[in-house]
Amino acid sequence: MHALWLEDQQLTLRGDCAVPVPPPGEALVRVVRAGICNTDIELTRGYYPYRGILGHEFVGVVESEGPLRGQRVCGEINAVCGQCEQCRNGRPTHCDHRTVLGIVNRNGAFAQYLTLPEENLHVVPDSVPDDEAVFTEPLAAALEILQQVHLQPTDRVVVVGDGKLGLLCAQVLALSGCQVWAVGKHRDKLSLLAARDIHTALITERPTVRADVVVECTGSPTGFELAREMVRPRGTLVLKSTYAGSLTLDLSRIVVDEITIVGSRCGPFALALDLLARRAVDVRSLIHARYPLTEAVTALEHAQRAGVLKVVLDIGLS
Amino acid sequence: MHALWLEDQQLTLRGDCAVPVPPPGEALVRVVRAGICNTDIELTRGYYPYRGILGHEFVGVVESEGPLRGQRVCGEINAVCGQCEQCRNGRPTHCDHRTVLGIVNRNGAFAQYLTLPEENLHVVPDSVPDDEAVFTEPLAAALEILQQVHLQPTDRVVVVGDGKLGLLCAQVLALSGCQVWAVGKHRDKLSLLAARDIHTALITERPTVRADVVVECTGSPTGFELAREMVRPRGTLVLKSTYAGSLTLDLSRIVVDEITIVGSRCGPFALALDLLARRAVDVRSLIHARYPLTEAVTALEHAQRAGVLKVVLDIGLS
Repeated sequence: MHALWLEDQQLTLRGDCAVPVPPPGEALVRVVRAGICNTDIELTRGYYPYRGILGHEFVGVVESEGPLRGQRVCGEINAVCGQCEQCRNGRPTHCDHRTVLGIVNRNGAFAQYLTLPEENLHVVPDSVPDDEAVFTEPLAAALEILQQVHLQPTDRVVVVGDGKLGLLCAQVLALSGCQVWAVGKHRDKLSLLAARDIHTALITERPTVRADVVVECTGSPTGFELAREMVRPRGTLVLKSTYAGSLTLDLSRIVVDEITIVGSRCGPFALALDLLARRAVDVRSLIHARYPLTEAVTALEHAQRAGVLKVVLDIGLS
Repeated sequence: MHALWLEDQQLTLRGDCAVPVPPPGEALVRVVRAGICNTDIELTRGYYPYRGILGHEFVGVVESEGPLRGQRVCGEINAVCGQCEQCRNGRPTHCDHRTVLGIVNRNGAFAQYLTLPEENLHVVPDSVPDDEAVFTEPLAAALEILQQVHLQPTDRVVVVGDGKLGLLCAQVLALSGCQVWAVGKHRDKLSLLAARDIHTALITERPTVRADVVVECTGSPTGFELAREMVRPRGTLVLKSTYAGSLTLDLSRIVVDEITIVGSRCGPFALALDLLARRAVDVRSLIHARYPLTEAVTALEHAQRAGVLKVVLDIGLS
């Protein structure tokens, strides 16, 4: 089969990968659509020494035998042991022995086929088209913030960063009824939010009133510093992006202002699918380009251009 | 009057300071006992460009007219405006216009007299001797953790650092019924906790099981890194020390492990006095040396020696 292979930070479109054989408990999924995430780009830059097929956002169809055969599914990316301290304490996404689709020791979704444990798969409602279902994983990640931070309608919330994750986070946070400002560098990207009653501002025009909650979605040191400046004393600063390399911080400001910093990663797929089925968020407008799998290297390059939001790979028919 | 004056990171014992005249709403307090805190030492190293009389831990007697005259008191260190957004929203210790006793634009407690707003003063119960009442401020700071983090008896808690703040934090946290480990470099200092049913370990012998909550009380980069390593995924890392200068962190670990970092500063004086009156914590064992005010420069030097806990200044009689 075809697949986009990462090794020593080099991407190769291979045509010689074997269709994977699912081990017991896992399903074979024929990938229909996959999305390119900033984490994929970070991996090509050496954020984590991954070697294998890239990609973790997908929708596909189960081809192996079992109760899910023929179903259209998306899949949680952490494959877990179920036995370790984290799994036994209700934190399976933090499993000490996890593999992670396209990120840690598990071939990913930029391929014609992938395997995942059956327990990881969620059936996509018929009303959710492939181009929206492919957003389930990042939308779940945005929803993770609501699992971690108790937002109230009286809260002022700022999302820093108008990339694809920032735009998803802003939409999800606005569902809590709080006043959301999205702050970024691109007026055209921010304009996608204006239709959803979300305040937007360029960084140079950002509100001076500090926020109760600030969500950092840039993954850059300047974004972090901006986010810290915008949070009020005793406020909460959510880190939603992974950072390649280290960051130098003035931790005393965190202590003196009694800021709470919350690291936030993978979230609830079922809730994300529910939001998509209810059309509560607009994900489709985020698609800026689409490529066939055979042009995946070009697609990755496209995704790194300034101002580009989601690039999807059309891999097959559902 | 005599006072310990800090200017351009130089300490001077001055004999020519005028007894302060309290402005309306403030009380004149004759200082009886004062404690040296690591923040005082950091200020002499330029942590914050403070110029004036040092010191913010004290017990004294009110000498000015008013309802508190003749009462033995300790005092909250933040003098606030009552009008700003922070004050109006229940965060007076974060007042945008605050002065802070011996730290920000307000002469401190290493002097024969100080002034503070009457609203800042708390009457010390007769059963609490001066040598214990002088710990009210740092004990309140330790109690702040319980205001911020919901501890349960089933939680494993680690305190990193066996300095005076670490020893107070470990005692306060143990009151929640959780299993507390104090981890430090000095077996003799840690031994003060063993009598209170708190687990202790040298850093080299620290438990390998990760904790639900880790409290960083060293203020050093290595202490921070140790604390981060010891917290479990989705655990809480409390920063209790101010850090001079910046710290370089791998923020991706915070995101991937979904750690919550909580900055923690000043706490509730009334609850601290209540703990002292109930003899729920042992503070007296922390006093390692005492000096008269006229030897305050020597006292500050003593407080910086390795292995030394609290150094107090005997300033007068209560």
